[in-house]
Amino acid sequence: MFSQTAEYALRAMAWLALTKGDRVASSSLAENTQVPPDYLAKVLQLLAKAKLIAGRRGVGGGYQLLRDPSEIRLLDVINAVEPLTPIESCPLGLKDHEGKLCPLHRRVDQATRAVIKLFDDATLADLINEPGANTPLCSEETTALLTIDGKR
Amino acid sequence: MFSQTAEYALRAMAWLALTKGDRVASSSLAENTQVPPDYLAKVLQLLAKAKLIAGRRGVGGGYQLLRDPSEIRLLDVINAVEPLTPIESCPLGLKDHEGKLCPLHRRVDQATRAVIKLFDDATLADLINEPGANTPLCSEETTALLTIDGKR
Repeated sequence: MFSQTAEYALRAMAWLALTKGDRVASSSLAENTQVPPDYLAKVLQLLAKAKLIAGRRGVGGGYQLLRDPSEIRLLDVINAVEPLTPIESCPLGLKDHEGKLCPLHRRVDQATRAVIKLFDDATLADLINEPGANTPLCSEETTALLTIDGKR
Repeated sequence: MFSQTAEYALRAMAWLALTKGDRVASSSLAENTQVPPDYLAKVLQLLAKAKLIAGRRGVGGGYQLLRDPSEIRLLDVINAVEPLTPIESCPLGLKDHEGKLCPLHRRVDQATRAVIKLFDDATLADLINEPGANTPLCSEETTALLTIDGKR
């Protein structure tokens, strides 16, 4: 249902949250998220444009979050790359459907709003701090390394 | 959230349901669904491949439903063009996430399943028979014509 771009954006943001806001080289980000580097570059551009991350070029360069993981909702991430928009008006422009969507578009709208709610209810911090859960993008081994070093 | 293709497929199927299973010329279908004819042709191919509709070429040709509108779920339509698939296994292939998705992919999975449920709970007949609702794709004027003639 979600595009590859949305999936990759969520992975990139989860990794940046896991590395505790440190600047992460794009090569490391690509490796840990299993995203092709060229594709990742485009995703990171969109996330930077939405002011969720900032990038710096050159030696010691990389990407980092611009806000605390507790202040970035999954919906912010999705909306940066593939905006989720409820149906506010009839897609066919029928005047007597304005303000009263037909049963078809009402259902499409309901589905979109259900997804918006789910992603609005969770932050990046929720993904990485859930007690008893496994860690996004990480095997048990990688999680242990993250815990020891504060970053991989 | 849904692709243009999914939206167009739903429109085409709603129109074929409204015309009571009659064979509808693709030009009429394109006009009434406001879908560009070339794009519609591709969507109809996918719907035919999924055995939801059948097409006939030539004079008197067109497309018609292969089942009663009460037996075609919106999910069938969406799945014909853009399958909605729950996340059954870790998209990164992490072995210790098999059978226990991480909080990120569990949420993506939840969202997908919520949408699947919404579209599995409604048939084409539900769209066109809802008391007090307006008719998909139709202005009040068109609805009146449909009611009088049994088809436009």
